[in-house]
Amino acid sequence: MTTAAPASTTPLEPTERTRVTRGRNRAVTDRQQLLELLRDGLVAHLGVQVGDHPVVLPTAYAVDPDGPDAEGTLYLHGSVAARWLRSSVDRCVCVTVTELDGLVAGRSAFHHSMNYRSAVVIGAARLVDDAAERQHALDLIVDHMLPGRSATLRPSTRKELAATAVLAVALREASLKVRAGGPVDEPSDVEAGVWGGHLPVRRVIDAPVPAADNLPGMPAPAHLTRLA
Amino acid sequence: MTTAAPASTTPLEPTERTRVTRGRNRAVTDRQQLLELLRDGLVAHLGVQVGDHPVVLPTAYAVDPDGPDAEGTLYLHGSVAARWLRSSVDRCVCVTVTELDGLVAGRSAFHHSMNYRSAVVIGAARLVDDAAERQHALDLIVDHMLPGRSATLRPSTRKELAATAVLAVALREASLKVRAGGPVDEPSDVEAGVWGGHLPVRRVIDAPVPAADNLPGMPAPAHLTRLA
Repeated sequence: MTTAAPASTTPLEPTERTRVTRGRNRAVTDRQQLLELLRDGLVAHLGVQVGDHPVVLPTAYAVDPDGPDAEGTLYLHGSVAARWLRSSVDRCVCVTVTELDGLVAGRSAFHHSMNYRSAVVIGAARLVDDAAERQHALDLIVDHMLPGRSATLRPSTRKELAATAVLAVALREASLKVRAGGPVDEPSDVEAGVWGGHLPVRRVIDAPVPAADNLPGMPAPAHLTRLA
Repeated sequence: MTTAAPASTTPLEPTERTRVTRGRNRAVTDRQQLLELLRDGLVAHLGVQVGDHPVVLPTAYAVDPDGPDAEGTLYLHGSVAARWLRSSVDRCVCVTVTELDGLVAGRSAFHHSMNYRSAVVIGAARLVDDAAERQHALDLIVDHMLPGRSATLRPSTRKELAATAVLAVALREASLKVRAGGPVDEPSDVEAGVWGGHLPVRRVIDAPVPAADNLPGMPAPAHLTRLA
């Protein structure tokens, strides 16, 4: 890994654990594309071995490209009492972020597919002890979901911070797989006149719905209305 | 588990492995809601232990509520050469399907959240050997993505079937967690006049994009145009 290059342009050099073994034509080694996907995604799926079986749970996350790890740091958070969180500390975990971009209607069942971008990050989960890094990570997680939100909120209380654990995973062992475009079919099926194509899929965020207990006459703040 | 009741109305009785330990108020034990989420979802995240670490990969799936397992069967497929697939056969895997429904803007960082529905299924992955069950599962996977599609396609060839492996996981050990609605905040933050609410999130499927190599003058079939 060429550590002299800026982290965001360091190519993804797969290890044995992150090498894309199937569909290698879909493997992408541009670290910038990895960061873009991690910016676009909202939910990560964390995999951790709990006892004798793997558990996969959805969770919010954020990335600090300039975090303490050379290639950037991915942050997760959870209740200090969560079993999955305690099972992850200092253990090897897998964090996967997938964006579904389309449904691919091939001319045969075999050539049906999905368009997607998927990042797989494998690494030891570090429990973040440092108070400043923890607060920074929590702000990043709020702002990843709702950009600009954290600056409008009061500081977290000591009690809130004590109830929240933050995990960090280095963006070192990571792979990115991307599929885009239409189907790739057997010529005989194309000639037979079966319709082939794809249906783009995208996520829509609708206008903010105010909580029932808002004070009267409060408009939604601009940092939220501009997301819709 | 009361096997006399129809599978779709059997309550989800959590085992030690699928018990929701955090946010128990969000645990849902209605099996019908589990099936509805599995109908709505398009991508599953499969977790499997590969060597000394978990791997989480996105994958298409389908459910047969009347499958060979008493409470229904979840099917996955992949290339027979895929490492994750070989690592899953007869091993305990975790299949998680998550739908993101909203972003919850609380009045404090601590009370930010997401609205979601998430199903976690844990069980041994069975390699489907029976030719009829395999063909049925592959049709279900195509139709789960694009309802009505499989009936318009030629049968799979022997070569295509030989290249494709199908895994089955019983919908026995499953849990469902749901969050909906606005934030639940500290009264002092509500009184302080911070705006709280949520932003609904939904998936949109756009109109079919024809493949460049379609024969001239072919309209997209109705089973695809009606998805947009």
